[in-house]
Formats: sequence, C-alpha cells, structure tokens
Amino acid sequence: MADQLAHLDALAQAALVRTGDATPLELVDAAIARIERVNPRLNAVITPLFEKARDQATSPQLPDGPFSGVPFLLKDFGCHSAGDPYHQGSRFLKELGWTAKEDTYMAAKLRAAGFIFLGKTNTPEFATMPTTEPDAYGPSRNPWNTEHSTGGSSGGAGAAVASGMVPAAHANDGGGSTRVPASECGLVGLKSTRSRVSLGPEYGEVWQGLVNEHVVTRSVRDTAAILDAIAGPMPGDPYFATPPTRPFLEEVGTDPGVLRIGVLADFPGQATPLHPDCVAAVHATAQLLSSLGHTVEESCPSALNDEQERRRQVWAILTSAIASHIDTLGKQTGKAVTQDDVEIHTWAMVEIGRARTATRYIEAVEWLQADTRRIARWWQPEDGSAGFDILVTPTIAEPPPRLGEFVSTAENPLGGARRSATLMPFTVPFNVTGQPAISLPLHWNSAGLPIGIQLVAAYGREDMLFRLASQLEQAKPWAAQWPSVRAE
Amino acid sequence: MADQLAHLDALAQAALVRTGDATPLELVDAAIARIERVNPRLNAVITPLFEKARDQATSPQLPDGPFSGVPFLLKDFGCHSAGDPYHQGSRFLKELGWTAKEDTYMAAKLRAAGFIFLGKTNTPEFATMPTTEPDAYGPSRNPWNTEHSTGGSSGGAGAAVASGMVPAAHANDGGGSTRVPASECGLVGLKSTRSRVSLGPEYGEVWQGLVNEHVVTRSVRDTAAILDAIAGPMPGDPYFATPPTRPFLEEVGTDPGVLRIGVLADFPGQATPLHPDCVAAVHATAQLLSSLGHTVEESCPSALNDEQERRRQVWAILTSAIASHIDTLGKQTGKAVTQDDVEIHTWAMVEIGRARTATRYIEAVEWLQADTRRIARWWQPEDGSAGFDILVTPTIAEPPPRLGEFVSTAENPLGGARRSATLMPFTVPFNVTGQPAISLPLHWNSAGLPIGIQLVAAYGREDMLFRLASQLEQAKPWAAQWPSVRAE
Repeated sequence: MADQLAHLDALAQAALVRTGDATPLELVDAAIARIERVNPRLNAVITPLFEKARDQATSPQLPDGPFSGVPFLLKDFGCHSAGDPYHQGSRFLKELGWTAKEDTYMAAKLRAAGFIFLGKTNTPEFATMPTTEPDAYGPSRNPWNTEHSTGGSSGGAGAAVASGMVPAAHANDGGGSTRVPASECGLVGLKSTRSRVSLGPEYGEVWQGLVNEHVVTRSVRDTAAILDAIAGPMPGDPYFATPPTRPFLEEVGTDPGVLRIGVLADFPGQATPLHPDCVAAVHATAQLLSSLGHTVEESCPSALNDEQERRRQVWAILTSAIASHIDTLGKQTGKAVTQDDVEIHTWAMVEIGRARTATRYIEAVEWLQADTRRIARWWQPEDGSAGFDILVTPTIAEPPPRLGEFVSTAENPLGGARRSATLMPFTVPFNVTGQPAISLPLHWNSAGLPIGIQLVAAYGREDMLFRLASQLEQAKPWAAQWPSVRAE
Repeated sequence: MADQLAHLDALAQAALVRTGDATPLELVDAAIARIERVNPRLNAVITPLFEKARDQATSPQLPDGPFSGVPFLLKDFGCHSAGDPYHQGSRFLKELGWTAKEDTYMAAKLRAAGFIFLGKTNTPEFATMPTTEPDAYGPSRNPWNTEHSTGGSSGGAGAAVASGMVPAAHANDGGGSTRVPASECGLVGLKSTRSRVSLGPEYGEVWQGLVNEHVVTRSVRDTAAILDAIAGPMPGDPYFATPPTRPFLEEVGTDPGVLRIGVLADFPGQATPLHPDCVAAVHATAQLLSSLGHTVEESCPSALNDEQERRRQVWAILTSAIASHIDTLGKQTGKAVTQDDVEIHTWAMVEIGRARTATRYIEAVEWLQADTRRIARWWQPEDGSAGFDILVTPTIAEPPPRLGEFVSTAENPLGGARRSATLMPFTVPFNVTGQPAISLPLHWNSAGLPIGIQLVAAYGREDMLFRLASQLEQAKPWAAQWPSVRAE
C-alpha cells in the first residue's frame, strides 16, 4: 500500500478516502512509515507530530474537505499551527522550546480542507537563505543527490515531497523560497499573486509584501486545488487580491490558446554567461512551447537587467525586516536576542538593519515600486500595444549547488548572502512585482539533477499559468521521475 | 446661464453637452466667470489654467467620455498634469517655478472621461495639515463663513466645489484630507478602498498605503460616476483592489435593503466629550436611518479606542514619509531643501523623520496592520457571526475650526500638528485599514456651518456605501443648501 501511495498526488490520495479505498489513518500511517524510512537520510522533517496526526485521522471531527485525510507537512517558518513547536530554524527558539499559540489563517484553511499535519519541515534560520542548512537542525539533503542542497528556504518541504514522504507540503517565498527548492528538488512550486493568501492573523504583510505563502507539490493540479483551498482575503487584510473568476483547478487541463511567450536564457544584467544546463533547459522548453503552437521569441522585460540595484534595494528591505523581527522575538519571548543566539549571517543582517534609517527604507520601497512599473510594461505596454503573456526563465541560475557552499564566517559574515545573490536573479524580481510565477520540473541535467523552469504571468493571472503549466505537464510529464532517495 | 450651471452637478453639465444644450466652451467660460467672481474671497484656485482649458474645450480632440466638456480642478498635490505648475503647497517649488513633466494615470483617466482642467486648488504644504493655510499661497476660506477653515488638505477643492465654481474637483486623503474638507464645506467626499485608484506612474503607494486619490463633489452620483472613470489598476501597481461587479453609478438609487448600522457619537479613547454639534448630527442621522428601516444601534469597533497609540504610529509613518519626500524633492530639483525653504511644522517633521530607524518604521507598519485586523472584526467577526454593515460617525470631532488655529511657531513647532490630532479621530482609522469611507453633508449647526457625517463600509464595499449614501441623499437632500459665498 505505502509504495503505491508515494506515487499519488494529494488529490489522488483524497480520492481514495472519498471512495472508501483507504482511510485517513491508512494514509497517515503510510506517510509516517515513509518519513521514518527516508528522513534519516534527508533531514527534511525536523519535528514529527505523528501521534497528533493519528488522532486527527481517526477523529469524527476530521473536516470533510477536498483533501480529507491527506498527510501534509508545515514548514518551520510562516504558517504555524496551534500548540506545536515553532522555531523558525533558529537555535534561539529551539532552546526556548517555543510553540505557536494559534493557527495562522492558512493553517486553519488547510485543516478545513482536510489536510492532516504530520510534522514540521526544516528551514534556514529565519528563512533568509536559499539553502536549508540551519545550525539548529542541520542540513536537509537533496533526494536526487544527498551531497547537494535542497535549495531554500523551503528546503525541508522540497526534500519531503520530492522523496515521496507526503504529496504536498507548505512553503513560502520572499525571494524564491518556494520556487528554488521546487527547482532543485524537481517539484512544482508556485509563488501566487501578492495578497492571494492571507498572512494573518499575525501579519498583514511580511518583508514589505515580498513574502507569499503556498506549497510545493508533484502535480500542477495539486498546486491549483490547494490554492483554491487557501486563497481569499481574511477580514483585516491590508490588501485583497482580485479573486479568480472560477476555481483555479478548473484551469488545469483547459486549453491555454496560443500564447505570446518570451524566453530569457541569459544572466540578467551581468556579463557572466548563464550556466549551460540552464540555457539547455530554457531552449528545450522554448522548443516544446513552439511545438505546442505558442508564439515564442527571445524577449524579457529590459528592466530585469537592473539586477544589482534591485538586489541592493531588496537587501535594504530584508535586513531591516530581520532586525525588526529579532526585536519582536525579544518582546514575544521576554528574552532579548543576542549575537550568540543566532547564526553569523543573521547577526550581520541585524546589525546592518538596525543601522538603517526609515528614509532609506522608504527609498527602497519606492525604488522597488518603480521597478515593478518598469517590469510590468513587458506584459502590458503603456502604448496599448499587445504585450507578452508569459515569460520563461530558468528558476535559478545554476544546477542545485552542493551543501556547504553558502557559508558565512566571522571573517566573511556575508559570505553566504553573497553566494545566494548569484543564484536568484530570476526569482526575486517577481517577489518585487507581486506577479505569479511557477517553477516546473521540466529538465534534468546530465548528472541527474533537476533544473526547474520558471513561468511568469501578469499580476493576478494564475489562471493562465495553470493552463499553460498543465499543458506542459501533459506534454512532458515528470510524474515518473523519481530521485534516488525515495520513500516508495 | 452661469447662475443655472452652478447648481448642476457634473453629470448634469455633461448631459447638457450631450444633448447640445451647451457647448464645452460655454461650460468652461461660465466656470471661469464663476471662479473670477468668488475666488478673490475664497482663494481656492491658486493656479488658473484658463486659456489651456478654453483650447481644450474647443479642440476636436476633446475625448467623448461621460464628462465631456465638464470643468474640473486639480489639487496642487498628488494628481498632477503634464506641463502645469505643481508646487505641493510649498514655497520651495513655487519659487523654482516647478512644473509636472507628465500626467498621472488618474489625470489621464480624468481627461479621457472628458473633464477639462481649469486650474489648481490650494493645499497646505505637502498636504500634511487638515486646514489649508500654506505660506506659499495663503489661506483658503470657507464659503459658509470666510473666517473659518475649509479643512484640509484638499481645502481649495472644498471651497471651489462648495461655492459652485466647478461641480467636482480632485482631492486626496492620507488621514482625512478628502473627507475633512467635504465635512467642513458641506460636500460629498469619498475615500475609496485602498488601491482602488492607481497612484502611478510616479508612485506605487504613498505614505505606506494611507493615501487615496479621488474627488469632492456635490452629489453622490458624481462621486460614483467619477470613481467608475478613474478606478482600476494600472500595469505595475503593487496592489490591485477587487473590481466591482457592476459600475458604481448603478448602485446609486439601488435599494440598500435593511442594513445593520452601528453609530458612534463619542470621542474614541478619550474622556473629552464630543462636541454637541457632532453628537446632534450623529443622532439625527441615526434617527433618519431608523426611519428608513435600517437596524441602528450604538456600537463601534472597540479598537477605535486605541486612538492615541494609532496616532503615534501614523505619526511615525508620516514624518518618515515627509523626510523621505524632502530628500526626493532635493534630488528631483537638484537643490537640497533646507529649513528656510519650508514651513516650521514641515521642518519639525523632517527632523523627526530623519532621526527614525527602519526598524521603528516597520514596527509602526506592523502595529497598524494589526490595528486593521482588530477594527475589521466589527464588520466580519472571526467567529463567523453576523457583523455590522455600516459604521456612522461624525467626519470630524468639531464644527469647522476658525482660520489661524493650526499655527506652529519656533517655540512650538508641532503646535499645528497637535491641534490637528484632536480633529480627526474618526477619519484616520480608515486610512489605516484601507476601508471605504464617505462624508455626507447631512447636518448644519446653529451657526450655519456644515457638520459632515461619515459612513464606513467593509473593505472593498463602495457598492454598499453608494446605495446607502444615495438613499440618505434622497431622504434629506442637500442640493438646495448653498453657502453665503457662492458663484451662482
């Protein structure tokens, strides 16, 4: 039973429960067995909640939703669950034995959809790195090659879903943290439109609107159906995304029509050539898109070339936000966070953030909003001419890096951050603009490592992304591709 | 002809053009004559653009929109027009002879709707005061009693529309700046839902989302129809408001049904009793609403009582934003702004803003987003029970103050700001939450001064506001009420 289940996506597992072919407890027990089999090699799940999950699976109160009884994992950052450990990848909170007091709205919606939380997945400290190697919990390992990074910051989630522990897991993305592990682990990872999923009740926005909450999955339909379950504003949200005209799931399998697609196979704003594996992945995708009847040309928003300045401005937001977060943690826990409590790169960010003025922060916000305006014109030109429908890029600028590359030292406290910057020229711009962007597992390099492809639609147009992504999934299915470390 | 036109709202003036009963030039010339008659007593229009307007009125390129040929005024802050003086109420920009390089998106949409810009209206320096008494251009005077303030910061607009110079004029609202002059001048003033009207291409957001662009008018239908003309996101906006299901104008005159309405006739969070004129206005409105069949009770979001803390947090945003704005002006003009260039209260704000850290700024943003969550629950309780539909408050906490009360001196550089704070406990909360709020001229005190009533709906629910506001307008029409200084 367990071997088969590992191959089923969340909707397929839910269908088994609905038809009576499996009970929630069977799904949960099988997932627990899978986690126990492969997690020692991957370190994806850092906090098991197995007994709680088994209780929920047999409870008459288990909600009758689209995913009733389906095993799920929450990342140890962002969407937290009442009464469960919540350490944000940090030693500080781990040593305090910190737990979350309440469910986030997203957690409550996931529960209402019928998902059962089996545990928490690994994340770098405060989710600021695109690799998952926190001091607090040690590195997560890539199921395709355990010497390689899972990506981050949702790397535990990436490893868990890629290895088949669970069909879907919570992820979030403030600069690529859903899409990067999706790319590195061979999964589907969507950053939806800004404000699509509420960050409440604790937050209105996080990182000045850069952060988006969603999941990593193995199928486009799961990503769509889970978004249907968690999308929609909650009372008191500071912004409401425009609602879809019909459920996202209905877009999956719908003919996208002939789309005008631009492809980018260069490193934006840099003379450095893009890694040949990424170039190959983009070219193969462009050919596939052409063969499907789309109009494909080499084009991208020219503003993407302002990559270094964008990085500088995002850094101003991020370091300020981390410094503020550390202050907040001190108030929440009653214990001020000191240099000894956090990793080297975190403290370096805190010091930079604390020294920043409000006017410099506002300057960054205004630069990024102007950047948004410049980038959006490629989809909707100001002169009213027809824009592009979809941008295709590699998700990251190289194959999955090895573990241990993103190191910060006392001598080089921002070494990890500098290494990160070169990885993510394609993902960060769409945290800035708020546009939906999805990473699809469309390519593997000669070493057998996944090379994700990113599709980006105009603001609010997840519908188009799901139509095109499902067309690509059908044309070049990845469901049969499994990593060497797998839980089947 | 002119006397009659002063009594017609914008849609009625547009209808004359459509039926051929008036030409755009006749409307424009009549409005110019009205401005020339009463403006010397009111100082509402600071920059006439009469010749340009007459050219547009006779141009074959005049757009055929819902307001073709209707005279209109732009405030000297926010929505600017290409090639026209743009001084933001400041001596600094006035002395430089500064002009705007481009139309804002809103200005372009107003032009496309057929409006003709006759000039610019007065505003306090950088629009930070709820009275319109800039050093650069002198005080605007209230048409109901010229010893009194028009309110601000859209006070020039308020005086211009109340006196009948034009039927509608641009206004904007970062803490009450549309609603306050609407209240003090006896007009309709809506702050629409956050992100309803684009602030581009120059800005994504202003004052961290507090600022909203719209108009002051003499009829609910004008306010609705103009919102139809200018609403809707533009490419590159960082946030998109949920679009209405049908034009706002169609809500006007539609039966609102039986609404659950809470009324607030106390000074939030203070022992100070509310001014009796405001109490009387709220009670009269409550009675009227009851007589119309609504369910009316004394109730409001209890979080409104955190008035002092909210003011402190908004002050942190505002002073940071003004300091940043001054830096930007220096870059734009190539001339650094010094203490001598600006008013006393502006420089005091700049110094406070410059000393603020980014972490303190983020703390303010987070407090205000949590405040939004607390306030919104009154409309949509978390337990799923039925919330209220509409909150009724006075728009401001007193009758229109006299001119000269909002003075800052070298000894007391924040005297004006402190005086302002007590005026606006009812408007600021909904800049914070982003909810739509409208001021209606439903009451006059024994001195003949207008006392506005504010109606507040849930986020995105301008439709409900327009239905109820038009019902009130029909039940207690104000169109026949005219101030002593009027242009008929």
